[in-house]
Amino acid sequence: MSLSFTHETLPQRVVFLPDANQRVAEEVARLGARPMVIGTKADAVLPDAPHYRDVVMHVPVEVAERARGFAVENDADVLVSVGGGSATGLAKAVALTTGLPIVAVPTTYAGSEATNVWGLTKNGRKTTGVDERVLPRTVVYDANRTLSLPVDLSVASGLNALAHCVDSMWAPRTDPINQALALEGVRALSAGLPQVVAAPEGIEGREQTLYGAYLAAVAFASAGSGLHHKICHVLGGMFNLPHAQTHAVVLPYVLVLNGPAVPESERRLNDAFGPEGLHGLRERVGAPRALRDYGLREADIPAAAAAILAVVPESNPVPVTTEILTDLLHRAWAGEEPK
Amino acid sequence: MSLSFTHETLPQRVVFLPDANQRVAEEVARLGARPMVIGTKADAVLPDAPHYRDVVMHVPVEVAERARGFAVENDADVLVSVGGGSATGLAKAVALTTGLPIVAVPTTYAGSEATNVWGLTKNGRKTTGVDERVLPRTVVYDANRTLSLPVDLSVASGLNALAHCVDSMWAPRTDPINQALALEGVRALSAGLPQVVAAPEGIEGREQTLYGAYLAAVAFASAGSGLHHKICHVLGGMFNLPHAQTHAVVLPYVLVLNGPAVPESERRLNDAFGPEGLHGLRERVGAPRALRDYGLREADIPAAAAAILAVVPESNPVPVTTEILTDLLHRAWAGEEPK
Repeated sequence: MSLSFTHETLPQRVVFLPDANQRVAEEVARLGARPMVIGTKADAVLPDAPHYRDVVMHVPVEVAERARGFAVENDADVLVSVGGGSATGLAKAVALTTGLPIVAVPTTYAGSEATNVWGLTKNGRKTTGVDERVLPRTVVYDANRTLSLPVDLSVASGLNALAHCVDSMWAPRTDPINQALALEGVRALSAGLPQVVAAPEGIEGREQTLYGAYLAAVAFASAGSGLHHKICHVLGGMFNLPHAQTHAVVLPYVLVLNGPAVPESERRLNDAFGPEGLHGLRERVGAPRALRDYGLREADIPAAAAAILAVVPESNPVPVTTEILTDLLHRAWAGEEPK
Repeated sequence: MSLSFTHETLPQRVVFLPDANQRVAEEVARLGARPMVIGTKADAVLPDAPHYRDVVMHVPVEVAERARGFAVENDADVLVSVGGGSATGLAKAVALTTGLPIVAVPTTYAGSEATNVWGLTKNGRKTTGVDERVLPRTVVYDANRTLSLPVDLSVASGLNALAHCVDSMWAPRTDPINQALALEGVRALSAGLPQVVAAPEGIEGREQTLYGAYLAAVAFASAGSGLHHKICHVLGGMFNLPHAQTHAVVLPYVLVLNGPAVPESERRLNDAFGPEGLHGLRERVGAPRALRDYGLREADIPAAAAAILAVVPESNPVPVTTEILTDLLHRAWAGEEPK
């Protein structure tokens, strides 16, 4: 088979360092003299900088407008987001119109800091787009900042990242480069998540999980949304299921469906999962198992299957039918073995 | 062990495509309207563009000055290098002072197109530097363009790339990200090189080798020069040994020296080499075996060992002594088994 692909590598400086407060200040100083901090919590870094705390999920446009005004009032020349996807998302909204550089300091495994995707919500409708200005110039990953994330949320969020890695193997813009990064992400998450569960206060599992979450975001931004992501997006949008848990439940069903059609990718994924495989990993971390535990009703399945069928990526390695989707959703709803 | 590293990802668009002439024209048009071609051979791409053919190895400053003048005379707004490291290097020299974007179309496995390193030679002395302006914005890898590279040169050049991948595992700025890319490079080169030898006119082995050479350059630019590269640099500089062949001979000796001190890297390298290992790969491609075949004399070894000892990277996983280097060089000189 001929190698034929186009890959865009995005520029970013990433720093992995425990206890990185001093380093955050140094990285900010490389990019500007008048930082503005964005995040809900008081932050020990940059105590004298103006601090915008009104962070809201999905970045409502009114919040973005206020934050942009705050940046202008304070004559900010660099944005410092401290938090999860919502804080990063708000910083991106400000960067989108102002062009200010962002230093991102993530406190979760959401991964938005490694992508050039922005999102804004107006009248309950989310618009997303891609713009090079919103890609954080620098990310400082300090695993100590993720210690406060509870174990169950850490697991759901880490499995969400794992799902992005796996889905990258057959997503529309999949290529050998984003596959290699995705496989490295699988390796890191498979090593890290059991350690987070076994020793939630330990730093090593958190570091590996954070590293894996970074790679998942890089791979996903490059490869695009595969079948897994489309399924979860539909379920989240139609039935308001929680994002990370939905990803965590659905993953094994999509892997069992697609894996055999891409044997080389399946082999490499299995190598990356390690001897216990995805099944063993899910057992060890007590992964969410059934969509009915997160609000999906059995009666919702036909409508979900129909909506998903309309958005199945052309790149998917196996043909997908209503019957296949219905069976997959029913198993995921009940928490049955994938097949 | 704690994850602690800083990684800079450089922005670049890479296109892998066989028979990419039309695509080269399209990629050039994305960046400028008045291309200038740099390369020794007449090129079917952009037949109407001004073409600078005076390409000389190691980029003498006089040549760079003439090429810069040619760009100004022709009011060029984008540079298109077609060739090996010398053509790419000359385009970089022009970009360094003019800031013009480069579209690189490599015809060898040298890898310069994927780095931000430039070099210029004045009065026989080479100066090198790092500058973001010289990193080609776009690279179009068309494996058909490497078909004219003879098998023995392809093998030496591919093993040179392989050596960069392996050396990245313990180079001064090694980190998990450049290691993952280096390991993917080892995988591609181990798959591609035997195919180039078995079927020199076939495209598949060439594609994998070109892809591996790209990854080798990305990993090397990120991780820096490890012990292997230092050894080869000294041998090349002091005794004028040929670059690629020297790398090809020295690699197994450095791997056997360092590997056991970094068992996880060694294990992952072995996985990437595949069941036959580096030894089997070298057998299958008829790799260069002894430095004495390329101009090193036994009497040169003490001086070489002394010069190498002075530049051993601090990051090297095992301490290196004069005795170790003397033994390594003697074995590499004679083509004996590494140990």
